[in-house]
Amino acid sequence: MPAEIPAAFQKLLSDNRAFAHLATVKKDGSPQVTPVWFDYTDGKIRVNTAKGRVKARTMQQGARVALSIVDPDNAYRYLQLRGEIENVVPDPTGAFYSTLQQRYRGHTSEVKDKDVRVVFTVRPTAFKVRG
Amino acid sequence: MPAEIPAAFQKLLSDNRAFAHLATVKKDGSPQVTPVWFDYTDGKIRVNTAKGRVKARTMQQGARVALSIVDPDNAYRYLQLRGEIENVVPDPTGAFYSTLQQRYRGHTSEVKDKDVRVVFTVRPTAFKVRG
Repeated sequence: MPAEIPAAFQKLLSDNRAFAHLATVKKDGSPQVTPVWFDYTDGKIRVNTAKGRVKARTMQQGARVALSIVDPDNAYRYLQLRGEIENVVPDPTGAFYSTLQQRYRGHTSEVKDKDVRVVFTVRPTAFKVRG
Repeated sequence: MPAEIPAAFQKLLSDNRAFAHLATVKKDGSPQVTPVWFDYTDGKIRVNTAKGRVKARTMQQGARVALSIVDPDNAYRYLQLRGEIENVVPDPTGAFYSTLQQRYRGHTSEVKDKDVRVVFTVRPTAFKVRG
């Protein structure tokens, strides 16, 4: 796998219709996967969740994750990304969540559960593309 | 999680625009996720791959997998499925692969690598829905 995202797939990372399917491994060793909002800044993927959810329990610092991001214009074209959780930071003002709202919805609204919102930064270790 | 798929989500399993994001755990303990074709028959999910690929190495009998299937008409509506590989069977005539071609493309074409095609049957153990 190349260590950098092929240029042709860079655009996909800022496409506001593109969701990531984020896979993690639970403590019992079984996989979990859900679609999530994400952003890509300075070579890092950031996602968010709320404390108490499965992802918040599995995505500790150092945990390995995988993401699959499909081109909204071509279901057979996708980017696969592997990485490690670099850090987990609370989002007490909901600022990061608002960034994602803006990206995906084009506007922000009150983040009611900001006291439990958490930001995960993923350091990509490998990419693989198809299509 | 309910043990049965909620009726409102049954239709999603036969929607020919719906792909599954299939997550597995590799031998080194890290997750892997890719979009795949699937079918749902007699309460089981079936997917296929070719020998030699990452999924063929990780999805041994008894291995746990997770799938996420998003409604093509609503990105915020999805079905999450967890399960276990019930069996792994060769597809030497490409018959199952042709079934998937028919479902997703509306026609079949020659399965050139049928000698390495494999069918995985997943026994669902839990479902979770959103939206």
